[in-house]
Amino acid sequence: MARKSGYAIGLDFGTESVRALFVDLEGNQVGAAVVKYKHGQITRTLPTSGAKLPPDYALQHPNDWIDGASRAVRKALKISGVPAREVIGIGVDFTSCTMLPTLADGTPLCVDRRFAKVPLAWPKLWKHHGAETQTDRINLVARRRKETFLKRYGGIIGLEWFFPKVLETLEGAPKVYAAAEVWLEAGDWFVWQLVGGEAKDLPRSTCQAGYKAMWSKADGYPSTAFFRALNPAMAHVVRDKMPGRLVAPGELAGVLTPTMARKMGLPAGVPVSAAIIDAHVGVPGAGADKPGTLVMVLGTSSCHMLNSTEDCFVPVVAGIVEDGILPGYFGYETGQAAVGDAFDWLRVMLGQRNFDQITESARAVPAGSDGVLCLDWMNGCRTPLMDGSLKGGFMNLTLNHTPGHLYRALLEASAFGLRWIIEQCQEHGVRVDKLVATGGLPHHNPLLVQIYADVLGKSITVHPCQYGPALGAAILGVMVAGKKASGFASPGAAIRTMAAPRKNVPGRQAVVVRPVHADRKAYDRAYRRYRNLADMAVAASKQE
Amino acid sequence: MARKSGYAIGLDFGTESVRALFVDLEGNQVGAAVVKYKHGQITRTLPTSGAKLPPDYALQHPNDWIDGASRAVRKALKISGVPAREVIGIGVDFTSCTMLPTLADGTPLCVDRRFAKVPLAWPKLWKHHGAETQTDRINLVARRRKETFLKRYGGIIGLEWFFPKVLETLEGAPKVYAAAEVWLEAGDWFVWQLVGGEAKDLPRSTCQAGYKAMWSKADGYPSTAFFRALNPAMAHVVRDKMPGRLVAPGELAGVLTPTMARKMGLPAGVPVSAAIIDAHVGVPGAGADKPGTLVMVLGTSSCHMLNSTEDCFVPVVAGIVEDGILPGYFGYETGQAAVGDAFDWLRVMLGQRNFDQITESARAVPAGSDGVLCLDWMNGCRTPLMDGSLKGGFMNLTLNHTPGHLYRALLEASAFGLRWIIEQCQEHGVRVDKLVATGGLPHHNPLLVQIYADVLGKSITVHPCQYGPALGAAILGVMVAGKKASGFASPGAAIRTMAAPRKNVPGRQAVVVRPVHADRKAYDRAYRRYRNLADMAVAASKQE
Repeated sequence: MARKSGYAIGLDFGTESVRALFVDLEGNQVGAAVVKYKHGQITRTLPTSGAKLPPDYALQHPNDWIDGASRAVRKALKISGVPAREVIGIGVDFTSCTMLPTLADGTPLCVDRRFAKVPLAWPKLWKHHGAETQTDRINLVARRRKETFLKRYGGIIGLEWFFPKVLETLEGAPKVYAAAEVWLEAGDWFVWQLVGGEAKDLPRSTCQAGYKAMWSKADGYPSTAFFRALNPAMAHVVRDKMPGRLVAPGELAGVLTPTMARKMGLPAGVPVSAAIIDAHVGVPGAGADKPGTLVMVLGTSSCHMLNSTEDCFVPVVAGIVEDGILPGYFGYETGQAAVGDAFDWLRVMLGQRNFDQITESARAVPAGSDGVLCLDWMNGCRTPLMDGSLKGGFMNLTLNHTPGHLYRALLEASAFGLRWIIEQCQEHGVRVDKLVATGGLPHHNPLLVQIYADVLGKSITVHPCQYGPALGAAILGVMVAGKKASGFASPGAAIRTMAAPRKNVPGRQAVVVRPVHADRKAYDRAYRRYRNLADMAVAASKQE
Repeated sequence: MARKSGYAIGLDFGTESVRALFVDLEGNQVGAAVVKYKHGQITRTLPTSGAKLPPDYALQHPNDWIDGASRAVRKALKISGVPAREVIGIGVDFTSCTMLPTLADGTPLCVDRRFAKVPLAWPKLWKHHGAETQTDRINLVARRRKETFLKRYGGIIGLEWFFPKVLETLEGAPKVYAAAEVWLEAGDWFVWQLVGGEAKDLPRSTCQAGYKAMWSKADGYPSTAFFRALNPAMAHVVRDKMPGRLVAPGELAGVLTPTMARKMGLPAGVPVSAAIIDAHVGVPGAGADKPGTLVMVLGTSSCHMLNSTEDCFVPVVAGIVEDGILPGYFGYETGQAAVGDAFDWLRVMLGQRNFDQITESARAVPAGSDGVLCLDWMNGCRTPLMDGSLKGGFMNLTLNHTPGHLYRALLEASAFGLRWIIEQCQEHGVRVDKLVATGGLPHHNPLLVQIYADVLGKSITVHPCQYGPALGAAILGVMVAGKKASGFASPGAAIRTMAAPRKNVPGRQAVVVRPVHADRKAYDRAYRRYRNLADMAVAASKQE
């Protein structure tokens, strides 16, 4: 099929701002703009009343999403010089689980005069941690009822997920719950605003639903009986308050309404993809169209994602979702809870202004850190243990050890945690053929990537893109534009062409980090000792 | 008995220098001088040949001891203005096990032309670590032969002790071993120089012999069969190369010879006590005349000592020696391998120029360090586990923890280690009634002393003396002067009068640190968790 001309827009909704990226069908950036949310994260006082919020609250203002995105698209459009009529598709990625209650017409409850001063009527940001007791109960009830959905989530429902936040609202602000006609993810809400339509048809992403709302293609949402056991008032939450249809990312949610088109300076009728979670969009964003490529999004924490043709029961993943990342595959999500932020915590602990000195010292320390062992669970263990109560540590210290030893041991612990995850996947039949690192960290921390490669004994491709999520979202836009408009015969062709590294194109060249095999033996020994220490720490935590 | 006038001299031989202290019979300092050894620690090259020494060597020059002590006594005498004839006794404490080979007349082999260029002919300083393989063999053979002396030393013979150094010389420089007519501790050698006499009568301290040469009053030295099993050439080392008689510290070794009297500017005939180890002299130096007072000498490492009327089998002490500290008692020695040096290591690790900031932060952290647990085994575990291969660590770390948490957790670990030791003593029938802290650290680190008091639930008396060891040595001098000269009816009376804190005498007032009982529960919990962690670390070290 002949290559077409045209442009796609990726809208990447982060915690503080939204980015609009315009790309051509080669994946080249032609315009981009970032707009900060006017209200940012709402963590201290409510904008309407000035009322003080509890310490674990984190809310957002839905107008910021509409205003921010509209301004970002207009700016990027202007910068690009692209004729608006040549935009062939739009994709949206969003933080998750960021969610809100609305009326049947999509109006957020928090902009309704009756509820504007009730904190729990506001959109709860992913990191809102107000639902601790509800999460505990959800896990207790699910385990007691032997709910089969648990096995898709490593046995644990997360504090930041969808139903904990719904239940928190039901129990903390029953009037808000009663008035809510629709509960939905912010990403889905935004796409619904773009494409319009009735609530019963609103396009809910299989990604958000699968990873955060215990939905699966085979079984749907949890049962009425389960919800009744949580709280009788919530028994029919799905039937009564979660209208819509499930659509995979890269599948058509609808087309741009005239109203939203006007706001954004675009023509009406542009195809829009179902939303995707900002982490999971890293898979198409890194050019990974094939199953078996583990895309590691490395930042404050890390998210490792993988598509597979197989639905294997892997007990240690944060989520397994059919059509969860790309249509037609089972998407596996794993991750580590403290990566960049643990490195930064240690840097501050060691009295260092930047990473220069400890990086240099850590480089001089041999593989295995002269015996120092670390557990990188300073923010709990996400995968493989799914236990947020676990804690980190450094062992085997002597008076001869230096800050460089601690820092290297922490980097190695991060690599050992990843090796553990990959081994578990492979033992349960999920192939991991290729490793791609993306996100900010691999560019800033080459020592980390080298240690990952050495510990895993595998090359790692550091993806060159600086806007991985926005690019991935734009690719979803291309996918829904259809073959005729894009010229791509398959989703894979779009992903490869637009996002895979290219040897001879400036800005698209990947760095491939190869393992230093001489270090392998030392790492193998250290890995066994790490696993022993991990076992002991788990045993100790159970004693307490 | 009426109080007499008169003065005693304490000679305190440290690693770098010797201190001479003149005190009156109230324990008041009337003159003091410190003289650095001309050759200091000989660790790099031999003074005679310039030959490079192996990295674990640490030697000394015997002339430094004679010259240094003579100059220090003359200086202190001059400063004091005391008439030399009023000196009634001399006591000597010395680092241990610092030891040397001599000819039958006391001439050190290293000053004999034949051996001056042989490193192993020189006095080995306590910290000389050249005997690793020999120490391993000694422990192996002792365990295999089920030697009963092991139980007096927590089951382990130390790398720094007497016979490892003898065996090292036999195997590394057999001609030196063959030429040696006397092997002895440096403290005993110095006392022998002071009092003269033939080798067969040379006064060997029961303290040095008991704590470092596996001697006991009941059983003497290890058997010929044991030494033969180590190395047939060493079978008769005690009979052939260790002449002398055993004398307790505070018992008369002899009187000052005219030759040494001339060198020091003192009258001949002054009574001289048998030597004592520089740590153990802290007991009389802290005014602890009664059994049941634990004297904690806190510095780089710590030594906790206790006299008891009972000979109990305590499996966790570094040494139990009858007449080992004071005549008539069983002296118990325990200790922790990393105290001040671990604190300093952590301070440097955390990028702190001094302790001000981390001390302030640690004070603000509640008892139990918000869950952070430390094992203070960065230099191995001396007591209670007697395992130098154990290592330290920090566990239960989260991203919320700060340098103050690590520092407080380390101080608490030190206190927990002490509590463990004391509990073990008490469980095996050794009473601990009173706690006295001495050495440099308690004066500089009041937070440590407070945490010790809180964790133990007992008041701690911080002894005011700045020259504890030298004062303790001087008291041994008073003890050998006899009742008639000193006016003291008993050793206890001399110790109490001369070294116990006094409420109304400036410079003699003790600080008594009382436990804050509110913190006790938190510490009890943390202590149980510390013991669990210790068990796990020991199990892990055995796996490796």
